[in-house]
Amino acid sequence: MSGVRDAFAGVSQPRPPFWLMRQAGRYLPEYRALRAEAPDFLTFCYTPSLTTEAALQPIRRFGMDAAIVFSDILVVPHALGMEVRFLEGVGPRLTPVGTPHDVIGLESARLEERLEPVYTGIAGLRRALASERSLIGFAGAPWTLACYMVEGQGGSEARTARRWAYADPEGFGGLMALLEDAVVRHLGAQIKAGADVVQLFDSWAGLLSEQQLRRWVIEPTARIVRRLKEAWPEVPIIGFPRGGGLLYHAYAIETGVDGVSLDAGVPARWAAETLQAVVLVQGCLDNQLLVVGGTAMDREIDRLLSTLGQGRYVFNLGHGVLPETPPEHVARLAERVRTWSGSAGVG
Amino acid sequence: MSGVRDAFAGVSQPRPPFWLMRQAGRYLPEYRALRAEAPDFLTFCYTPSLTTEAALQPIRRFGMDAAIVFSDILVVPHALGMEVRFLEGVGPRLTPVGTPHDVIGLESARLEERLEPVYTGIAGLRRALASERSLIGFAGAPWTLACYMVEGQGGSEARTARRWAYADPEGFGGLMALLEDAVVRHLGAQIKAGADVVQLFDSWAGLLSEQQLRRWVIEPTARIVRRLKEAWPEVPIIGFPRGGGLLYHAYAIETGVDGVSLDAGVPARWAAETLQAVVLVQGCLDNQLLVVGGTAMDREIDRLLSTLGQGRYVFNLGHGVLPETPPEHVARLAERVRTWSGSAGVG
Repeated sequence: MSGVRDAFAGVSQPRPPFWLMRQAGRYLPEYRALRAEAPDFLTFCYTPSLTTEAALQPIRRFGMDAAIVFSDILVVPHALGMEVRFLEGVGPRLTPVGTPHDVIGLESARLEERLEPVYTGIAGLRRALASERSLIGFAGAPWTLACYMVEGQGGSEARTARRWAYADPEGFGGLMALLEDAVVRHLGAQIKAGADVVQLFDSWAGLLSEQQLRRWVIEPTARIVRRLKEAWPEVPIIGFPRGGGLLYHAYAIETGVDGVSLDAGVPARWAAETLQAVVLVQGCLDNQLLVVGGTAMDREIDRLLSTLGQGRYVFNLGHGVLPETPPEHVARLAERVRTWSGSAGVG
Repeated sequence: MSGVRDAFAGVSQPRPPFWLMRQAGRYLPEYRALRAEAPDFLTFCYTPSLTTEAALQPIRRFGMDAAIVFSDILVVPHALGMEVRFLEGVGPRLTPVGTPHDVIGLESARLEERLEPVYTGIAGLRRALASERSLIGFAGAPWTLACYMVEGQGGSEARTARRWAYADPEGFGGLMALLEDAVVRHLGAQIKAGADVVQLFDSWAGLLSEQQLRRWVIEPTARIVRRLKEAWPEVPIIGFPRGGGLLYHAYAIETGVDGVSLDAGVPARWAAETLQAVVLVQGCLDNQLLVVGGTAMDREIDRLLSTLGQGRYVFNLGHGVLPETPPEHVARLAERVRTWSGSAGVG
């Protein structure tokens, strides 16, 4: 088994396994060179030889214990027939979905066919990856996908989506049900292709009110987990309700996920005392500290390892690696986690 | 005493008092007409006759139990000598502060003199306001002010400020110490002018990692509260660490505030069970629900009143009234809160 799978199984290890969200990507010069081989980002995502290579690049440099499929959460809306464009330096743009009629226009029948290059890339990555490393598949969770699909872009506080969900929960629920199904199928196909752990990214969970988070994050995630577990009971599922704050505990208990990924705002000691008895915990180094580096980063790495390293723990960031991150800071982090021994610094 | 002050004192009342963050402002046609009487927003903020009238407008329409000074948190950086411009439809722009040398260039000696029109407006508002209504003064908390001052604007995830705070805590701490002092003086002057409650807005608290939130939100707030309490032990202080999530409890306990304002992501039942024993609780209706209105809004108002209305509670939003809010929704909310009787719907 891999270090990551062992951590889920509660097998004792000399130090926690680690990987980093967005460990492959723009902060690496070799990725930027590779990226130039495709005319646009979506074409890159649909070229198995390129995605396999991109996913392997950080493993070669830094030796993470898991590779993550190189892809994007927006391949799902794209496979549902939406126009998705990635504008250089601006971000993704979609033609917004805003009515139940728009939802009917989405076509899910050919999802796996359209995403076949993603699964081919996973199979290639599995062959290239040493067996002691996990291969993590992923998908955006329905709420976060709905944000992009309704707003047509990210970063807008999702005002339109949140209002639609309040004003017409049936209509919005239709979109969410369609996404729930698409996410189950997309993750299932990734598992069939070789992913041995999957992660659900709910990056915009923190925008929701308590009641909306329960309804549009926790409840759909619970259904997704149930369906995946029916088919693949042995594949660990990590949920990441970023910004979930005081609802992290309900999420951990009520969804049935095997692990929760914590953002940097979650108090580590609280997670150790409250969450680790229930689920594996992943996270939560501030990605800004990885940009800053130095002793400030070292101290926080040590604190997280000391606080969480005695329980079921996968070391990671609280959010993805930022493009401006110096690769040498990642090397320093990898070295520090790899050489950690649980006896040091445990308070 | 006012309904709001009574709530702090734990005096039993037939229903919780209420006011709304940004209850005065752009969603009201009479405000938009009034705003046209000043050439720019800062001039408006420094014209006592206009700010007094703006603060009274929502009280006349909706009868809130408290008026809040019409001002802006950025008057403090402006009074420290920074250039602050409010660009129509874009937001505020400041010439960023980025080094300890820049901090030395800020001049705090004339703060009260420069902000005299704010205090004159408060005195006028106090005279115009019925004595049973509270007059709430406010300031941005140091971290949130530092975000604007370092980034030069809002909404940027405060990457520069967060990195500066990690990389050079002494230098960044110099700016924070200066702001801490300015905030104490600005709130003190508002109390002297007639404010009987004050609120500290830490709108960007939720951007911080656990360790940064403790250092740059909880610790400075604790010092501000201590200094204000030395001079005005009877004036309640409300803290609003928006997005504070799992650190809301530590904030409530460790800062010494009399009340905490909750964002819409805070579970109401958790607040009733955990926070209300320690502090008064204010909040936390989703401001998007006030835009949507209707029965979805009614149900959530009822749920908050039922869950929190038995303890020390001031009804409010989880964030400010949005400019696109229909005034008739605010009227509906006011009517519903005002006619609530604690016996109904308590579960």
